[in-house]
Amino acid sequence: MANIVVIDTTFSTVNMGSIICDQINSSDLISDIKLERYTVPGFKDLAAVARRSIDSGADIVLATAMPGPEAIDESCAKDASFGLQMVQALTGVSVLEVFVHMSEVLNADRSIDEAKLIDLCENRCREHADNALRMVFTPESMVDRAGSGRRQGGADVGSVE
Amino acid sequence: MANIVVIDTTFSTVNMGSIICDQINSSDLISDIKLERYTVPGFKDLAAVARRSIDSGADIVLATAMPGPEAIDESCAKDASFGLQMVQALTGVSVLEVFVHMSEVLNADRSIDEAKLIDLCENRCREHADNALRMVFTPESMVDRAGSGRRQGGADVGSVE
Amino acid sequence: MANIVVIDTTFSTVNMGSIICDQINSSDLISDIKLERYTVPGFKDLAAVARRSIDSGADIVLATAMPGPEAIDESCAKDASFGLQMVQALTGVSVLEVFVHMSEVLNADRSIDEAKLIDLCENRCREHADNALRMVFTPESMVDRAGSGRRQGGADVGSVE
Amino acid sequence: MANIVVIDTTFSTVNMGSIICDQINSSDLISDIKLERYTVPGFKDLAAVARRSIDSGADIVLATAMPGPEAIDESCAKDASFGLQMVQALTGVSVLEVFVHMSEVLNADRSIDEAKLIDLCENRCREHADNALRMVFTPESMVDRAGSGRRQGGADVGSVE
Amino acid sequence: MANIVVIDTTFSTVNMGSIICDQINSSDLISDIKLERYTVPGFKDLAAVARRSIDSGADIVLATAMPGPEAIDESCAKDASFGLQMVQALTGVSVLEVFVHMSEVLNADRSIDEAKLIDLCENRCREHADNALRMVFTPESMVDRAGSGRRQGGADVGSVE
Repeated sequence: MANIVVIDTTFSTVNMGSIICDQINSSDLISDIKLERYTVPGFKDLAAVARRSIDSGADIVLATAMPGPEAIDESCAKDASFGLQMVQALTGVSVLEVFVHMSEVLNADRSIDEAKLIDLCENRCREHADNALRMVFTPESMVDRAGSGRRQGGADVGSVE
Repeated sequence: MANIVVIDTTFSTVNMGSIICDQINSSDLISDIKLERYTVPGFKDLAAVARRSIDSGADIVLATAMPGPEAIDESCAKDASFGLQMVQALTGVSVLEVFVHMSEVLNADRSIDEAKLIDLCENRCREHADNALRMVFTPESMVDRAGSGRRQGGADVGSVE
Repeated sequence: MANIVVIDTTFSTVNMGSIICDQINSSDLISDIKLERYTVPGFKDLAAVARRSIDSGADIVLATAMPGPEAIDESCAKDASFGLQMVQALTGVSVLEVFVHMSEVLNADRSIDEAKLIDLCENRCREHADNALRMVFTPESMVDRAGSGRRQGGADVGSVE
Repeated sequence: MANIVVIDTTFSTVNMGSIICDQINSSDLISDIKLERYTVPGFKDLAAVARRSIDSGADIVLATAMPGPEAIDESCAKDASFGLQMVQALTGVSVLEVFVHMSEVLNADRSIDEAKLIDLCENRCREHADNALRMVFTPESMVDRAGSGRRQGGADVGSVE
Repeated sequence: MANIVVIDTTFSTVNMGSIICDQINSSDLISDIKLERYTVPGFKDLAAVARRSIDSGADIVLATAMPGPEAIDESCAKDASFGLQMVQALTGVSVLEVFVHMSEVLNADRSIDEAKLIDLCENRCREHADNALRMVFTPESMVDRAGSGRRQGGADVGSVE
């Protein structure tokens, strides 16, 4: 039985945790999975929940967030990343960072392209959910994909070889 | 009995710790709460007190600060954030970062809009106090708010879905 | 008996450790204090001595430094801050960062205003020594000063409330 | 028997882990080596696997990645570096960072020079594999190379002495 | 018997570890010193060896490196500094960072002034070796030098008092 923990935020404008849970619940492996979900206010709150989930037995954590479009938002997202790196360095348990940046879906006038934002969340969340399942259940299948230029949330660029 | 710890600074020009304590004290849950409060000189002093509060049994910590308006102030605030991320990664206990940046309330001449500053402190402190109560007493209510575009200290942006 | 540890540097052009020790030695509380002092080459050497002082029983540490006036100096000062944040996150013991930046006292031609530098060191060191005494002996007196816009080394800005 | 662990990514467009494993497998020392390989989605996922490999007995880890060409890619690569520094500081086991940056092989129009990219991966991966073997089996041979201006993936610059 | 550990790199174009060892070996205190030396590829590899030297009994570590002249080199040097700060925060053992930056010895055309580079390495390495000896054997002599404006590798600026 693998314990998979999903954490998302109330800051995000898309229910990213729900998308990931949906993808995991639709897996053939679901009967071997104990899926848990937590929600925190914002990305700086992810590290604490990731750490205590791991202390309670999580085999892998998916930590989602949606940083805002301004430079200050990106700067703060780095603080959150730092916390997640630290959790992983301390525990040796993988915490997949599933961040969708509003800066990735800006219109020319810097407003948010909402349809594009939802699409990007859908794709990135589902692809990272699949990665988590591979990492936990079939890590050798990850090796088969090494160097293949995979992207989560957009078209793969492929191998140059 | 939940142990909630509030830390604020002598640097801030608004008594942020007092606002948070007031909000928590007005909660219906107050009889189940052991509320403690500490004050430190500035934001770089938050991490030590957060860590020792957690070592003494804190279930959640609210760490407040008011970074000044200059680039150097923001840069130092990142050092403080780093310390708080580390405390959370090491302990698995949530430390809500309740920072009100003077740069958020500047007039056109870069002076501080004091009324706006007080308002922002009031709103952000009270909303984070409510978040802390939810996280400790009813974490499932946080999941109900996932992806809803919440903001602390301003209007929520709402979900795009 | 409180163990207070003061660390300064040979890099600094003012004997900051001596000023802090003088202030602490002049306190009414001195008979309850075990005061220790160490000197390291530069600010990147503060974290190790802070950590081992804490492991030997320090109740609080004052870590002084004088970063140079260039951008690279400020950048390196952040590395030192990082180390001090980490010590605090790991131990839960406060390490007051008493840094006087040469960039704070530059003349128009970017030379150092030496009189101003000495004054700033005097004021900031003594005020942080007083903070340390309050934090160790009368932490409730810090709460009385919450949100009062205190500055170490210059005029307080006061509360906006 | 030395346990050498190689980690690469599905993000990379070259199979860097395979190159390193090939170089190590061709070593005369191979009968004394237990070689393991893992693949993760991207560079931010390296630290967790490095840490758990070390906890399982790794004597040295080679962590490969291929950061993209944009400023944001480089910024995120620093987060990954941070995680690897932390793993090393916590464990005392070397984790060689074998990063090939797309920004190193850009054409004038900022497209990727693919032939150059493959060459650079080949050279850097093989040279770091050799470094890992020296560090584990003949650390004194590293001292013989001190101050000799070695570069991995390009021409050595040599000693100025 | 003090255990002093010197770490240098194959990246450096000057044999910095050799200079430090020469200075320590010429000390009157050498009969009380167990001197060890390790060489790693580059500065990001210093933290692991520093940590395991400390775990094996090092009383002090000198970690040398020669960051290249470009902005990216300086940025990576900060990652290395971070690792060394972390080792010190975790262990309480001093790790003197003896970095000579190529950017310190550039000619007007941004080529390296090699004579100046060698001189700078000589001076900085020997002065830090002396600092290490003072810190281990006569820490009180460091206090005598507090606030005296010492620089390693150039003229001292002296005290302003």
